[in-house]
Amino acid sequence: MQQRDRLQLEWKLGFSGGLCERPREWVRAAVPGAVQADYAAKADIAELFRAESLPRIQWAEDRHWWYAAALGPARPEDHDRRRVFVAKGVDYHFQIRFNGRMLHDQEGMFAPTELDLTDLARDGGELLVVIRPIPKAPAPADRLKIQASRSVKPAVGYGWDFHPRLVPLGIWDDAYVELRPAFHLCDAELRYQLSDDCGEARLTLEACVAAGAPGRRLQWSLRDSGGREVLSRSCAVADPTVRDSAALAGPELWWPNGQGPQSLYTLTATLIGADGRPVDQLSSRVGFRRVRLVMNAGAWDEPRTFPKSRSRPPMTLEINGRRIFAKGSNWVPPDMLYGRLNREVYAKHLGLARDAHFNILRVWGGGIVNKESFFELCDELGLMVWQEFPLACNDYPDDPRYLSVLDAESRAIVRRVRRHPCLALWCGGNELFNAWSGMTDQSKALRLLNGNCLDLDGDTPFLATSPVGGVGHGDYRFRDEKGREVFQIFAAASATAYCEFGCPGPASAETLRKIIPPQELFPPRPGTAWQSHGAFGAWPVEPSSWLCLGTIEHYFGPSQTLEELVFHGQLLQAEGYKCLFEEARRQKPRAAMALNWCFNEPWPCAANNSLIGWPCRPKAAYEAVKAACRPVLASARVPKFAWSPGERLTCQLYLLNDSPDPLPAGRIDAVMRIAGRDFPVGCWEFGEVPANENLTGPILFCLLPELPSPTFDLELRVTSRPGFNSTYTFCRLRQE
Amino acid sequence: MQQRDRLQLEWKLGFSGGLCERPREWVRAAVPGAVQADYAAKADIAELFRAESLPRIQWAEDRHWWYAAALGPARPEDHDRRRVFVAKGVDYHFQIRFNGRMLHDQEGMFAPTELDLTDLARDGGELLVVIRPIPKAPAPADRLKIQASRSVKPAVGYGWDFHPRLVPLGIWDDAYVELRPAFHLCDAELRYQLSDDCGEARLTLEACVAAGAPGRRLQWSLRDSGGREVLSRSCAVADPTVRDSAALAGPELWWPNGQGPQSLYTLTATLIGADGRPVDQLSSRVGFRRVRLVMNAGAWDEPRTFPKSRSRPPMTLEINGRRIFAKGSNWVPPDMLYGRLNREVYAKHLGLARDAHFNILRVWGGGIVNKESFFELCDELGLMVWQEFPLACNDYPDDPRYLSVLDAESRAIVRRVRRHPCLALWCGGNELFNAWSGMTDQSKALRLLNGNCLDLDGDTPFLATSPVGGVGHGDYRFRDEKGREVFQIFAAASATAYCEFGCPGPASAETLRKIIPPQELFPPRPGTAWQSHGAFGAWPVEPSSWLCLGTIEHYFGPSQTLEELVFHGQLLQAEGYKCLFEEARRQKPRAAMALNWCFNEPWPCAANNSLIGWPCRPKAAYEAVKAACRPVLASARVPKFAWSPGERLTCQLYLLNDSPDPLPAGRIDAVMRIAGRDFPVGCWEFGEVPANENLTGPILFCLLPELPSPTFDLELRVTSRPGFNSTYTFCRLRQE
Repeated sequence: MQQRDRLQLEWKLGFSGGLCERPREWVRAAVPGAVQADYAAKADIAELFRAESLPRIQWAEDRHWWYAAALGPARPEDHDRRRVFVAKGVDYHFQIRFNGRMLHDQEGMFAPTELDLTDLARDGGELLVVIRPIPKAPAPADRLKIQASRSVKPAVGYGWDFHPRLVPLGIWDDAYVELRPAFHLCDAELRYQLSDDCGEARLTLEACVAAGAPGRRLQWSLRDSGGREVLSRSCAVADPTVRDSAALAGPELWWPNGQGPQSLYTLTATLIGADGRPVDQLSSRVGFRRVRLVMNAGAWDEPRTFPKSRSRPPMTLEINGRRIFAKGSNWVPPDMLYGRLNREVYAKHLGLARDAHFNILRVWGGGIVNKESFFELCDELGLMVWQEFPLACNDYPDDPRYLSVLDAESRAIVRRVRRHPCLALWCGGNELFNAWSGMTDQSKALRLLNGNCLDLDGDTPFLATSPVGGVGHGDYRFRDEKGREVFQIFAAASATAYCEFGCPGPASAETLRKIIPPQELFPPRPGTAWQSHGAFGAWPVEPSSWLCLGTIEHYFGPSQTLEELVFHGQLLQAEGYKCLFEEARRQKPRAAMALNWCFNEPWPCAANNSLIGWPCRPKAAYEAVKAACRPVLASARVPKFAWSPGERLTCQLYLLNDSPDPLPAGRIDAVMRIAGRDFPVGCWEFGEVPANENLTGPILFCLLPELPSPTFDLELRVTSRPGFNSTYTFCRLRQE
Repeated sequence: MQQRDRLQLEWKLGFSGGLCERPREWVRAAVPGAVQADYAAKADIAELFRAESLPRIQWAEDRHWWYAAALGPARPEDHDRRRVFVAKGVDYHFQIRFNGRMLHDQEGMFAPTELDLTDLARDGGELLVVIRPIPKAPAPADRLKIQASRSVKPAVGYGWDFHPRLVPLGIWDDAYVELRPAFHLCDAELRYQLSDDCGEARLTLEACVAAGAPGRRLQWSLRDSGGREVLSRSCAVADPTVRDSAALAGPELWWPNGQGPQSLYTLTATLIGADGRPVDQLSSRVGFRRVRLVMNAGAWDEPRTFPKSRSRPPMTLEINGRRIFAKGSNWVPPDMLYGRLNREVYAKHLGLARDAHFNILRVWGGGIVNKESFFELCDELGLMVWQEFPLACNDYPDDPRYLSVLDAESRAIVRRVRRHPCLALWCGGNELFNAWSGMTDQSKALRLLNGNCLDLDGDTPFLATSPVGGVGHGDYRFRDEKGREVFQIFAAASATAYCEFGCPGPASAETLRKIIPPQELFPPRPGTAWQSHGAFGAWPVEPSSWLCLGTIEHYFGPSQTLEELVFHGQLLQAEGYKCLFEEARRQKPRAAMALNWCFNEPWPCAANNSLIGWPCRPKAAYEAVKAACRPVLASARVPKFAWSPGERLTCQLYLLNDSPDPLPAGRIDAVMRIAGRDFPVGCWEFGEVPANENLTGPILFCLLPELPSPTFDLELRVTSRPGFNSTYTFCRLRQE
C-alpha cells in the first residue's frame, strides 16, 4: 500500500485593494498562521502583544490578502495518484484559484476545503488563496463587536474587555497538497450507541470512498488502548458510501478526569483493491462514553405554586450513567492570532487544566472552535468540552445569507468534533438570551444549530446558550459596589450551574514590567498602558475593572511597591476563587457545575479574571483553584473576609467528595493560625462518605483573639489524610 | 377543463382479531367517523355520552377494524383520468389494500394518503382500510395516559379529568376516490414574506405536477377579498416542481379579531395543456400577516442580580408589527369521537369564541390537530391558532421508531396548517417540562419538532411546550386549600402570559338531568354519575374537583335545589373568570396573554372549568368572560369576594383598551349596588386613552353598609359609554 504523502507548500503573502489586484510585494508566510503575524514581522513591529503596537497593524483587517504557493509538475512516479489540495481552515471569506482559474469561493473558516488539482496541475502552477477583508456589519463606534454579528467569525477579535481590537485573517489551520491513491478513502468514522448499562457498544462504521469500483472491499478493525485487536470486519464496497454495523461487548469506557481512565481505541479502515491488496488506509481514535444532561437534584419539585411555570432545565452532566459535578473553566483562545495555535501551546494549557483536577472546559462562543490537537489532548486528558458555536453577545439575524453560512459552518464543525469522546455539550453561543445580546428562543440561528446538532450528533446534549434558566453567570468581582463579597453572594445563590463567575487579579510583576513602560508602571493609573491592557475601565459594570484597585486598598491599604500590589491583588483573587469553587461544590447536588471566567488569556492582560496569565503563567489563584477542585477535601463556609479582634468567626464544615469512591470515616480539626500560633476552633468526627457525595458538618465558631498581622488563616486538618487539608486566609479589618 | 370528480364510497365496517382475519359481520359505516360510533349504534348503546354506556364499547379499542368499500370498474368516459384514493386521516395504525393486495402501511393519523388506483382498479374491486388496535405503551393501571406515550395519538382519549376513557379508531377525516386528469396539479401553495413595514408581500408559488410534460405552462392568479384580480402570472412547467416568484404591493392584511379585517385572497393555479387549454385547477385562500413572538415589556430589564440567568422568553404576539394582547381559551376536541367533527360543530363553537372578543385559541396538545374547516373558520373569524402537536403530560421517548412517526406526522401537519393566516404559534405540546411529564429541552421529540417547524414554516414562532419560563398555568380553583381566592392569587402573580387558568362551574341543570340518573341527582355525591362525569375526584390536587361543593357552600351555604346549586356554582365561576381575565389584562403590557382552561367540552361534564358545556351550551361564565374581553371596558381590582357590613371595600380602577384606536377622555363612576340601592363610591376622570394601551386609575374605597341580600354588586358606569360599563358581584360573608 502506498502511503499518503503530503507536499508542504512554501507560501508567500501579499495584500492588495481588491480581488483582481495582485499584490505588489510579497513576504514569506507561515501557514497555518495569520496575516498580521507575518506582516508585523515584516514591518518590524517587534512585539505585537503590547497595546502600543496594535494600531500599527490595524490596517490589515481592511485589505485583500493573497497567499500564493508554487506547485511543481506531477512526478512520473505519482501518475496513479491524485493531488488534492486540503485547506482545513481559511479565515474568513476567500477564494481558491489555480493558474488564474477560480476553483472555489467560500465564506466561513471552519468548513474544510478539498480540491482535486490532479488534472489542472499536471504541469504545475500557482495556487492562490485570496482572502477578503474582515466582515463588518454596521455598528456604532462604541459597540464595535456588533461588526461581527452577521458572520460566523469569532467576535472576540473585534474587541472585548480582555482582548484588544485585532481581527485575524489568514490560513489559520493546516493547508497542504496530499497525494492519494486514485481509489481512496475520503472518510471513515465509527458511530456508536451504548446500551443502557453501557455494557455494549452498537457500532456503525460509516465510510466514504472516492472513485469507487464495486466488488472491492473495506476492512476495518478496532484495537483497544493496549493495542489488542477487539474487532475485525470486512464488507463490500458497492457504493461510494459504506455502512457496516457490529457490536462490541464490554467496551472500556472513556471517563472524565478524576472519574476513571480515558480509554481510547484505534479504528483502522483499510480499502482493499481488486487484487486483494490494501490500497488506502485511515486511522483514528474512538472513545466510548455516553453523555446526558439530566435534571438537577430537586429540580422536578419546583415550581410549587400557581400559576405554575416550567421546571428549570437540566444542567447535570451524566457520563456513562454517573452524575458528574463539572469543575472547570471558560476557555478563550490562548493567542489572539489563533492561527498560530499548535499542539504545544494547547498541551501546556490543557496540562494545567488537568492538574487542577478540572474535568470540563467551556469553549466560549466569543472564540474559535479549536484545531484538532486541542480535542485530541482533551480526549487524552479527560477534559470534557462544552463547545459553543461562534456566536457571542450579539443579535445574530434571521437573514438567509447569514443562516446559510452558519448552516454550512456548523455542519462542518459538528461532523468533525462529534468524533471526540471529550465532547460533552453543544451550545449555541454566549449570553444570547440577555439584554446585551437581544436574541430569544425564536432566533432562527439557534433553532438551526439545535436542528443541525440533532441531525448530526443527536446523542450529545444541546443548549441554546448560556445562561439558560437556572444557570448563573457572574459576578466578576471579589466585592461589588454595595460591598457584598463573593462569600455572601455565592452562599445566597441557588443556581443549577455556575457557568461563569470571576474574581480578578493582576498579572505577575514580570509580565507587567514587559507590557507597561517603566514611567507608567507604578502606581497604576488609568489612561496608561495599564488601561490598554485591561486594568481600568474594561467592563462597563465596574469602572475600576479589572485591577479593582479600590478593593485591594479597601482590604490592604495603598501598596508601596508593584510587588506588594500584585501580592495583595493575587491573594484576593485566590481566596475569592477558593470560596467560589468550594461554595458551588458545597451546593452539590442541587448545583452541578462550577466554571470560572476565565482560564487563560489571548494576550497579556495587566489584570484579568484568568487563572493563567499570558502566555501560560499560572497566577496564585491557579493553585488555590487547584486545591479547591481536589477530588476530596475538607471545606469551610465562612461568611466574610475581613475580621476584627474579638469578633465571632463562624465556619460551617463540609467534606467534599467528587471521587467515584466512598471514603472511610475520619476527623477534621479546625484551627485558627494567627501570627504563627494555633487557636483551636473545634473538630468534626465525620462518618463514612458515599462515593461522589458530600457530607455537611457542624457550624463551629471562635472568638478572634488579637490579630497582630494583617492576615491570618483558618486551617482544616484531616487526621491521617493531610491531602484533604484546607487553608483559608482572611484579613484584619482596616480602620479607615 | 374537466372538473375533478369525487366518488363518495359506501363504506361498511367490521372487526376481527387480526390483520389476516376478515370480519364475520359488517355494519354500515359513517366516514368520516369513528368505529365506536358505528358500533354503539349497532349495539343499541343509545347514549354513548353517558358514563354508564362507556364500558359497553371499551372492547373496541383492542380490535382490528376493517373498512371496506366496493369500487366499480372504470367508466369508458373516464379512460383519460386517474382514479386516486385520498384518505386525509385514518386513525391510527393502518393498512390500505385493494383486491387483497397490500398497498400501504402507515402509523399516524395526520399524514394524508394518496394512492393511484387507476391501473389496479380498472375492473373494480374491494378497497380495504384495516386498522390495528389502539397503541398501548406499558402503563400502571392508575396512570393509563402513559399508554399514549409512544405514539402520535391524542392522549386525552386514554382518560383525563374531563374526558373518560374512550380512544377513537376509524377513518376520522375525509376519504374518497377522486377522478383527476392524467396531467394534474398535485399541490399549489403560495408562500410569502412581508416586508418590514408589511407594505409588500414577496410571493413564491410552489406547485407540483403529476406526470408532467415539459413545455406546458402554469397560470396563477390572486384575487382580493372583493374578487378583483390583483396578480396574474404564467410560468413554464419544466419540472415536477414549479416555483415562481412575484411581488404584491400593498396587500390587504389579515388581522386577528378586534384588530382589523380578516382579508383573504383567493389563489387560483391552472395547469395549461400542450394545446393551450386549461387541464386542471386548484384554488385556495391566502391571508397575509406576519407573526412574531417578541419580548414582553420590561423583560429585557430582568434579571438584575448576579449570578445572572437569562431573560424570560418572549410571549407577546406581534401581528403585522402591532403588539396584540392575546385573549382566548384552550380548545379541546368538542367531541370525544373527533371523527364526527364537521364544519357545523366547529362553526357553532368558533362563533361563540369570536363573539366573546377572543382573538386566540390554544389547541391543546392532548387533543387533535383539527380538520381543515376548523382552520378555514378561524381564518374567517380572526381567531389566531396556537397549534400544539399531539404530546401532552407524558414522557415521549427518544426512541427512533416513535421519532420517525413523529417526524412524518409533524411534517404533514406543518405543511397543511402553515397555509392558514390564523396560525400564530407552533408548540411541542402540553406541560412537557413539568414533573408530571418529565421531558426536558434535551428531548429529541421536541428538538425534532422545532427543527421541522423551522424547516417548513420558519417564520411562525415555535414554543417547545407551555408553560415555558415566565408563563403560568393554573390555578384551577376559585379558592385553594389555603383559602386564597383568584382575587389574591392573580393580583400577586407576574407571569409573562397566563396560558391556562381555570375556575370550575357545574353544568346546566338541563344537562345534569340528562346525564345523572334521577335517584343520584340531588344532592350531588361522590361515587355516583356526578363523579363519573367529573364532578368529584377528577383532579388529584383538589379532591373535590370539579364541583368544588365545599367552596360553593363556603360562600352560600348548602343549596336547597339543583337549580340553586347550579346558580351559585356558575356565579362563582363567572365572577372568578371575570377577575382572572381582567387581572391579566390589567397586567398588560408586562403580561401578554390570557387563555383560560378550557373553552369547551368533549362530552357532558357535570362540572368543569369550561365556558361552553356540552354539546355547545354557554355557561354563565361565558357571558362574564365575553364582558371581560370587550375591547374597551372599565375594570376594577377588588381584593376579595366575601365581605361583611362595615368593612372597607377597596377597588382600583382601570380603563382597559385592547382596541387599535385611541379613545377620548371620560369619566367612570363607581357605585355599590346593594339590595336595589346605589351607594356611590367615587369617580375617576380619565384622560385620553392611547391605542392598545390601558390607563391605571385611582384606588377608591367605601365602607360597606348593611348587606341585606346575600350578594351585592359593584358597578362601574362610564359616562356616555354604557358599552364600557362593568359589574362585579360579591357575596356577604357567611357567619359559620
